[in-house]
Amino acid sequence: MQNLPTYDDVVAAADRINGHAHKTPVLTSRTVNEDLQAEVFFKCENLQRMGAFKFRGAFNALSRFDAEQRKAGVVAFSSGNHAQAIALSAKLLGIPATIVMPHDAPAAKVAATKGYGGKVVIYDRYTQDREQIGRELAEKEGLTLIPPYDHPDVLAGQGTAAKELFEEVGPLDYLFVPLGGGGLLSGCALATRALAPDCKLYGVEPEAGNDGQRSFKSGSIVHIDTPKTIADGAQTQHLGEVTFPIIRRDVTDILTASDSELIDCMSFLASRMKIVVEPTGCLGLAAARQLKEQVQGKRVGVLISGGNIDMSRFAALLQS
Amino acid sequence: MQNLPTYDDVVAAADRINGHAHKTPVLTSRTVNEDLQAEVFFKCENLQRMGAFKFRGAFNALSRFDAEQRKAGVVAFSSGNHAQAIALSAKLLGIPATIVMPHDAPAAKVAATKGYGGKVVIYDRYTQDREQIGRELAEKEGLTLIPPYDHPDVLAGQGTAAKELFEEVGPLDYLFVPLGGGGLLSGCALATRALAPDCKLYGVEPEAGNDGQRSFKSGSIVHIDTPKTIADGAQTQHLGEVTFPIIRRDVTDILTASDSELIDCMSFLASRMKIVVEPTGCLGLAAARQLKEQVQGKRVGVLISGGNIDMSRFAALLQS
Repeated sequence: MQNLPTYDDVVAAADRINGHAHKTPVLTSRTVNEDLQAEVFFKCENLQRMGAFKFRGAFNALSRFDAEQRKAGVVAFSSGNHAQAIALSAKLLGIPATIVMPHDAPAAKVAATKGYGGKVVIYDRYTQDREQIGRELAEKEGLTLIPPYDHPDVLAGQGTAAKELFEEVGPLDYLFVPLGGGGLLSGCALATRALAPDCKLYGVEPEAGNDGQRSFKSGSIVHIDTPKTIADGAQTQHLGEVTFPIIRRDVTDILTASDSELIDCMSFLASRMKIVVEPTGCLGLAAARQLKEQVQGKRVGVLISGGNIDMSRFAALLQS
Repeated sequence: MQNLPTYDDVVAAADRINGHAHKTPVLTSRTVNEDLQAEVFFKCENLQRMGAFKFRGAFNALSRFDAEQRKAGVVAFSSGNHAQAIALSAKLLGIPATIVMPHDAPAAKVAATKGYGGKVVIYDRYTQDREQIGRELAEKEGLTLIPPYDHPDVLAGQGTAAKELFEEVGPLDYLFVPLGGGGLLSGCALATRALAPDCKLYGVEPEAGNDGQRSFKSGSIVHIDTPKTIADGAQTQHLGEVTFPIIRRDVTDILTASDSELIDCMSFLASRMKIVVEPTGCLGLAAARQLKEQVQGKRVGVLISGGNIDMSRFAALLQS
């Protein structure tokens, strides 16, 4: 447990990303407040650059590269928001980026990554191991590998989202944060314990992949197969070696939400709050609704993690 | 031209709605800035209470009722955002509200209006005249009729949107505002001439209903049949007796946008900026894109008027 990042790292990250990441808006909805009989604050990372909180951690991590690392470049493997966050951050910092993506990654995501100037290396999801490819590239070409969540600088960057929320709205009684590999949750936990020590902090993961909940209960990291859920940002197989001990220490509990709850929330957020939120980003609201009785009369934060969803899929889910 | 409202009325309206209306966020997008080679600020009235700027004017108008008016109540005719804005404002101020709605109004809008405590009077769109019904109710029951745009207190309230925008981002070189009956545009014109006198101010209406453009050019109010356009918030037949002289005096020019341009903008705003905007709310961005060469290197404001659109229709338009 030694050498875990602390809130000081979140504060340092906030300085590094200042002027590069958006200070995202905090939205409120009288309808939600009336439904839950509570005062609810939505921290909208769907309105972050790239459409997700991932930019915070990626930019923070790359900002800490030394001259040699900057020259050699960064490598990341991801088919999702982390790839684009690394590619964009690298572009802004003048660092070459290589992104390892599966052969069946959506063309739009490959194009977006290339659009940020990233070099894309395609692998076969069924016959090749992306982590191995990433590590080989790192060794062979001297690249620095930045993983999507299990890295002190990445999670410290993600924690700036909760830091901004508390600084804008003051202390909260409850905070609900989506949980995949735990980068966002562990970073937000550091900020929560520093800025609102009495706040109940919940991680929320898809029902189909409750490895986080099981790990939290058992005290050791549980590995699962890739879960089948529409929350593609939380389809992780296990928590990280850095994220887990922070979560275990600082989080109140882990909750789960079903796909149908996520679709209900997605539709509500679009129709009533006029924002596009990807299924993973709806986990927090789904959990707040589950705890309706407890949160009554309280001040509640809901972290919306991102809004990156293909429009045809979004439209289809709205009509489902 | 005597007795037109002035910027002082906008300032007074801002005081009245303070604490009741949201100070809506101003969003920016690097993608838009790169596309237009300009610095663009989106004033997001889709994130206003009720999902549209209409709440500002309605609340301002009802706040000015005297004791007798408050007791007797308000009447409004509208199938859209104005009805809900009046019903909600009336509820908040403890004023009885009667809303005259067509027999084929969407059930959701009728339910929403009733949900705010408004009394709904249904009329037959094909055989009855809603203005006449509204006026008769007003006379018979002593109600005060608040029209959707052609009223000094209504337009002064709408102008607070532009006031907030200038106060948050400073002077602009261009401002693009959706145009239906002219309540929003004339109110914003008063704020613009007071706070950014050199700003070029454009009203933007649907191509299918360019009565505003023709009125602006000819100098007298042109009446048209209800235009066929997806921009249902701008399906007005003519500018108002109060809104037109202000528009004629203070606005730079009137532009138009086609339905297909609006769909493109709606899709862009959802997929890249993660916000739900109704077709009418896309008029400003469509016009800014048309003036791409002029706005290059400039500071540009785009007023997004609202986000009230049925989700099944929104989904269908995204897929079209």
